Amino acid sequence: MSYGYNPYAQPGGAPPPGAFPPQQQQQQSPAYQWFAMVDRDRSGKINAEELQAALINGRGEKFSSHACKLMISMFDNDASGSIDVYEFEKLYNYINQWLQVFKTYDQDSSGHIEEGELTQAFTQMGFRFTPEFINFLVKKSDPNTHKEVSVDQFIVLCVQIQRFTEAFRQRDTQQNGTITIGFEDFLSVAIGCSY
Amino acid sequence: MSYGYNPYAQPGGAPPPGAFPPQQQQQQSPAYQWFAMVDRDRSGKINAEELQAALINGRGEKFSSHACKLMISMFDNDASGSIDVYEFEKLYNYINQWLQVFKTYDQDSSGHIEEGELTQAFTQMGFRFTPEFINFLVKKSDPNTHKEVSVDQFIVLCVQIQRFTEAFRQRDTQQNGTITIGFEDFLSVAIGCSY
Repeated sequence: MSYGYNPYAQPGGAPPPGAFPPQQQQQQSPAYQWFAMVDRDRSGKINAEELQAALINGRGEKFSSHACKLMISMFDNDASGSIDVYEFEKLYNYINQWLQVFKTYDQDSSGHIEEGELTQAFTQMGFRFTPEFINFLVKKSDPNTHKEVSVDQFIVLCVQIQRFTEAFRQRDTQQNGTITIGFEDFLSVAIGCSY
Repeated sequence: MSYGYNPYAQPGGAPPPGAFPPQQQQQQSPAYQWFAMVDRDRSGKINAEELQAALINGRGEKFSSHACKLMISMFDNDASGSIDVYEFEKLYNYINQWLQVFKTYDQDSSGHIEEGELTQAFTQMGFRFTPEFINFLVKKSDPNTHKEVSVDQFIVLCVQIQRFTEAFRQRDTQQNGTITIGFEDFLSVAIGCSY
């Protein structure tokens, strides 16, 4: 079982026949093939529902609609709620980088990692978080048992951390890890980066 | 057509017969009656899906699942994804306060208000926002036409602004509208208050 998008795809994950003209098929990247499979209504665009229908984690659970909407929103520049194959390719490459990290620590391929592994995953991604903050992220992701983070929750965390870190960096002109921020600017960042 | 919860309820909005024993019925608050109607599986708890099934705006559109999850999360202290009738009564009273404000400015009862009216609504609620910030909120709520805010989007904005304002106030020890905040604390607030 390999990661990337494929392990989370439902059985029968090959592109539907005729989704691309045969003469192009050899040149199709995995992202293009995947897009053709996910775009069930052949509209040339995929939305969060189509993405959700195609993604399951290692335990056979669906990705949350929140995670799917957040993924679509990353490259949905015209705010239409859907992305085309070019935007999907960017999303695909982006998410695959995070999944490669996740895979390293999800050794039983369950689609879930625990607190210590999450710490290592973020360290590998260049973040040095305190144990208290990692614990907060696990509790937020797993409100019932406070134990583990599923692959789709991991993606949600990565998107959120990436967005808020970017907003913080822009304001951290001294690069000392502290910013001074006014009320409206604070609200704009917090609301703007939330889904 | 009056506001509160009722105008957004689907036709046939009376509590189902037998939901409460007759001798108690006279004492039931609107919140209790409403809860009995929304709790379709009679589990004694309602979740975001049940809430969504019962709410429509003035144009016959469903409330977003995001809005319904955010509403449930406000009083879902055990993070079960559902709330009981006592928690619902608190939610009901809370949201009704915001809806009373919304109603004042939604003069055609369409369930939508425009930028100027949103400004007035927030002013009535004690906020003094700049036109730029109000414009940002409208664009965020209505990414397609940048024109108007629906009643469920208004509720989402109120929940978000209330949460982030509370987090800001706790840190604004000088009460001058500016805070100095470190990276992890910033991430904690931004992620913690997001749904």
